[in-house]
Amino acid sequence: MSSPNPQVNQDKKSHRVCFMPMGTMAEVAAGTTLRDAAKDLGVAIEAVCNGRGSCHKCRVRVLEGHFEDHDIRSHGDNLSSHRQTESHLIEKGRMRADERLSCQARVLGELMVYIPDESRRTHAVVRKSLGQREINVDPMVRNYRVELPPATLASRLGDWERLADILEEQQGLAAMNIDLHALRTLPQAQRTNGGVLTVTVWNDCEVIRIVGGERLATYGMAVDLGTTTIAAYLCSLETGEALASASALNPQVGHGDDIMNRIASCNGSLKLAAMQKMVADTLSQLARQLAMQVSITTDDISEIVLVANTVMHHIFLGIDPHALGVVPFAPTVCRSVDIKARDLGISILPSANIHLMPVEAGFVGSDNVAVALAEGPHTGEALQLIIDIGTNGELILGNQDRMLSASCPTGPALEGANLSFGMRATPGAIERVRIDPTTRELRFRVIGNPYWSNKIAANEIGALGICGSAVIDIVAELLNAELIDHSGRFVEEIGSERLRRDTDGRLEFVIAWATQTGIGRDICFTQADIRAVQLAKGALYAGAQVLLRKFGRQQPDKVLIAGAFGSVIDLGRALAIGMFPDSGLENILSVGNAAGDGARIALLDARRRTEADQIARLVEYIELTADPYFNQDFVDATLLPHAEDDFPSLKGSLAGQRPKPAEYA
Amino acid sequence: MSSPNPQVNQDKKSHRVCFMPMGTMAEVAAGTTLRDAAKDLGVAIEAVCNGRGSCHKCRVRVLEGHFEDHDIRSHGDNLSSHRQTESHLIEKGRMRADERLSCQARVLGELMVYIPDESRRTHAVVRKSLGQREINVDPMVRNYRVELPPATLASRLGDWERLADILEEQQGLAAMNIDLHALRTLPQAQRTNGGVLTVTVWNDCEVIRIVGGERLATYGMAVDLGTTTIAAYLCSLETGEALASASALNPQVGHGDDIMNRIASCNGSLKLAAMQKMVADTLSQLARQLAMQVSITTDDISEIVLVANTVMHHIFLGIDPHALGVVPFAPTVCRSVDIKARDLGISILPSANIHLMPVEAGFVGSDNVAVALAEGPHTGEALQLIIDIGTNGELILGNQDRMLSASCPTGPALEGANLSFGMRATPGAIERVRIDPTTRELRFRVIGNPYWSNKIAANEIGALGICGSAVIDIVAELLNAELIDHSGRFVEEIGSERLRRDTDGRLEFVIAWATQTGIGRDICFTQADIRAVQLAKGALYAGAQVLLRKFGRQQPDKVLIAGAFGSVIDLGRALAIGMFPDSGLENILSVGNAAGDGARIALLDARRRTEADQIARLVEYIELTADPYFNQDFVDATLLPHAEDDFPSLKGSLAGQRPKPAEYA
Repeated sequence: MSSPNPQVNQDKKSHRVCFMPMGTMAEVAAGTTLRDAAKDLGVAIEAVCNGRGSCHKCRVRVLEGHFEDHDIRSHGDNLSSHRQTESHLIEKGRMRADERLSCQARVLGELMVYIPDESRRTHAVVRKSLGQREINVDPMVRNYRVELPPATLASRLGDWERLADILEEQQGLAAMNIDLHALRTLPQAQRTNGGVLTVTVWNDCEVIRIVGGERLATYGMAVDLGTTTIAAYLCSLETGEALASASALNPQVGHGDDIMNRIASCNGSLKLAAMQKMVADTLSQLARQLAMQVSITTDDISEIVLVANTVMHHIFLGIDPHALGVVPFAPTVCRSVDIKARDLGISILPSANIHLMPVEAGFVGSDNVAVALAEGPHTGEALQLIIDIGTNGELILGNQDRMLSASCPTGPALEGANLSFGMRATPGAIERVRIDPTTRELRFRVIGNPYWSNKIAANEIGALGICGSAVIDIVAELLNAELIDHSGRFVEEIGSERLRRDTDGRLEFVIAWATQTGIGRDICFTQADIRAVQLAKGALYAGAQVLLRKFGRQQPDKVLIAGAFGSVIDLGRALAIGMFPDSGLENILSVGNAAGDGARIALLDARRRTEADQIARLVEYIELTADPYFNQDFVDATLLPHAEDDFPSLKGSLAGQRPKPAEYA
Repeated sequence: MSSPNPQVNQDKKSHRVCFMPMGTMAEVAAGTTLRDAAKDLGVAIEAVCNGRGSCHKCRVRVLEGHFEDHDIRSHGDNLSSHRQTESHLIEKGRMRADERLSCQARVLGELMVYIPDESRRTHAVVRKSLGQREINVDPMVRNYRVELPPATLASRLGDWERLADILEEQQGLAAMNIDLHALRTLPQAQRTNGGVLTVTVWNDCEVIRIVGGERLATYGMAVDLGTTTIAAYLCSLETGEALASASALNPQVGHGDDIMNRIASCNGSLKLAAMQKMVADTLSQLARQLAMQVSITTDDISEIVLVANTVMHHIFLGIDPHALGVVPFAPTVCRSVDIKARDLGISILPSANIHLMPVEAGFVGSDNVAVALAEGPHTGEALQLIIDIGTNGELILGNQDRMLSASCPTGPALEGANLSFGMRATPGAIERVRIDPTTRELRFRVIGNPYWSNKIAANEIGALGICGSAVIDIVAELLNAELIDHSGRFVEEIGSERLRRDTDGRLEFVIAWATQTGIGRDICFTQADIRAVQLAKGALYAGAQVLLRKFGRQQPDKVLIAGAFGSVIDLGRALAIGMFPDSGLENILSVGNAAGDGARIALLDARRRTEADQIARLVEYIELTADPYFNQDFVDATLLPHAEDDFPSLKGSLAGQRPKPAEYA
């Protein structure tokens, strides 16, 4: 990454930057380019020239004004002044005056930045971002420069034996093995570069690559293989730097949205092999994308660390997952495994290792272990509750004394799936909803458009459906505006024009009028949708209750919301509908894609893999359905809370008081 | 193998049995079936019913009379009497009276048995036979019967972890790994047979297969990958028994007969990969054949040990062999390597190991190491000279104190290739030639026909060319009949009708008249052919001289002729033309396919692999062309010896005296 301007570097402050339409926000060190800031957040901006300012593809727009939702005052002056290239482009009319090249403009203050569709590398919104943790760099894969003198008639050894001797003498690497693929490259590598070789060694025991000349840079990939999304992060194994990230839809989505359907799709070895290949091909494609982004070859990627839930983990290995779908939900393998890339059909260096972190149980996967590795509940006294909301809800409750885990049958409602107008978090999805509790006026915002629905013409909105973050908003706001009661039932007596009955007589609430949509009909939230959210949040809450009871505690010291979904929802509103136990709003944090961070940690620091193996063995998996109180907890928890009674920390905030007028302006 | 009849079993004697037209001969224990005897010699007889006497495909013919060449008096009474099946077939006219089912007829005395073409499984003659050595059975691969109780909600481990625990508790197998292929079979194997599993373990460290139920038999394959022929032996890894053997032409033969042309054919990675695949596919096919023969699946073959010369070894691994063709002839890898079958494209158990024995140098391969392992020169005081005549001639000279090896540039003449009428040892090839030194009458015998040419009508012979064994005969007999002198020149003055000049005026000697051939013209041996044989045998002799000089000895204590060719040539006549130093005719032995035997030893006894690795490091490779005396030795050795002076042990035998009248009857 390029270093900041000298005059800017003196400013040690950091500023809040929010990238729209994804809504991804972070504290960014002053002087960072917008493109680097976006990259660190996993937001991919087109960059053919890799940041040299010559391709002009990375342009973004600075939004002006005060954005109360994020408490950001954004202004063009909060960026470094135009570079010559940019002024030139604007003069020639090839760039708008409010646009900047994100690789040239550096952060000097708070910003709300809009990334137009054409500047984004992928059209699916990347929501899995890389955290900003400090990671020790001590990788499994290292490159060594070696000079191998040419063979002579007198040398009584083969080339490989001579090379192994040199590795032992000069690097202390004894009893080395060599992968067949690497062995095959030895004759060619030797012929060039005067005997100078770069030898790539895995785990101090196996040569996995030999190239002619000195090429010391090494790269690895961390992968979070989700039921819905696959996120991949390319890292330098020397500096630990996250160089690029990319994500793709898990192509198995076409074969079942949820875990159980996915298992059913693996019926027979041919179908299983096909499902395996889908993911392998997508990973190969992501590797290709990432390699191109930083101008390396896929053969330069010499290790992958992958985390996944147990079903994705088994299918990725080509192991029949059926046993995971029936009592006793037994995995075929739990411990971490190391497999050659070629054996899994991943097109990186064929001899590269794919490290799959250990899984805990049938419903608690290595993604959960990775979250624990990243958040470290086992390293401190504070009792952490970590909630990873993916297609399934996974919980960890623990501290240095003990760790418990559970899997909650949330269903996909919290991700916006299986609702009347539910959709994925892609452009056009309603992502925020506000209802004025006095006037009951409603406004919303869609992904891909920075403006609230009440600030622009109806035909400029083009809403397509409702995604997960808005689902939480809707239930919380309906409750706050007393449009639903604490059992979740619509309060028909209120008489809102938005609350009506469909042709079958069922109650529904209009979120977007047909004129505001791109689908030509009203987008509604139904009584059934509210029930689905109640079941999902009830499962999470009751799961946490079971774990707290096992632990003998009333509430956690900290609640960490992990996962792509966790980073986009409004935490206050999630608390208001009772999604998790209260530990004080200041102790409830969104930690982004902690599973991906855990994978990256294990990629960069080999010793942390041992820690992960220990975590997987330490964590006690609690099968919720086997707990005698879970069912009653679950039923109770489907109710919507009375904020004052149940959530002391909400007193004076959203649900406890009328909100401030500004919020509903 | 079926056990012999009780009444026959009491006879503890053994008898000489010779199988025609291959000429393969051995001492066979009385009571052994002809089919088993043939099988042990690597002669494959068709056997669809696997010896039950029901398929009637294994019929052979008993030749009657005294066969002086082998000193055998063969008679139908020297076999057990007809079984009911056989009498029935003869009655019905479905079998000739002189035919027997080889799976039913048991050896009771000396026999000359003819195996008709239709009873042989392959049409190429299998000349690589299995030796009769005693081998300790302590294989790398073992099967274990395990009972794996079903998983429960309480079991906190995956299936594999539970299985690994049982293997450790019950079998003492700690810290086990599992191959991905085996892991994939675990769910299915578990579902059946009430939790009883058979687990195949390699080297006490890796599970390579899991099947449901108890299936304890394990199988391995020993392979001798020659430049021309690939021989494969299927062995039981429990009993050590050689169950079946098969051979095939090395399909690379179409891309160069000799080593140097073969190297040239590997130009570019695509061509190299194609050459690799050819051999891999042929090995897969041989595995399929062998598996069918003993009614197992190819997945039951759980290890292969392979030996080859260094070029074949490198190409088989997919390693560019070009460096082996130019000074300093340096191999890319010497030490033994273990590679998964799937990584080499061999269709046996995908997770099976392919063990390639170590090579010594660019021109001395693992076949040479295997020969030393089988013959054990390093284990005794006697100075052994082992000559392995393949497409190249490889020498080992050594005893417990020291071992030397060399590779002689013999060229393919000794195998019958590159001669005017040279051909491979397949049916129709002239394999034996005799010239009466008094009358200068010539007779010959072809493969596929047990009778000498002077005993049958000319049009029943159908000679097609001359193979390696006849080449030695011809030169020795021409010399003995004084048709050539000691410089190898034809003695034109003798005035034989067979000695004539071709249209270009070059001298040639007619071996078979056109009427005796299947090609419609005279089959001749030319002056140039004699020169080629002189160069080949001169190289072998001079190579041995260099090694003896390094050792400080005049002659070896023992000469062992290994290789397919070694087992068919007439050793006395080979000595008469000066192919190797004299150590007394009684100390010159043909040891058959010792390389194949060495591979089988390493397959069956894991500890012998360590011994092989030591041999490869111990043997000092002598580059003949670097020896200052080699060239002069070579020139001298191209001359044909005066038997009385140069070969004391031949005094009174072939070259020293007129032969016995019977020999030339």
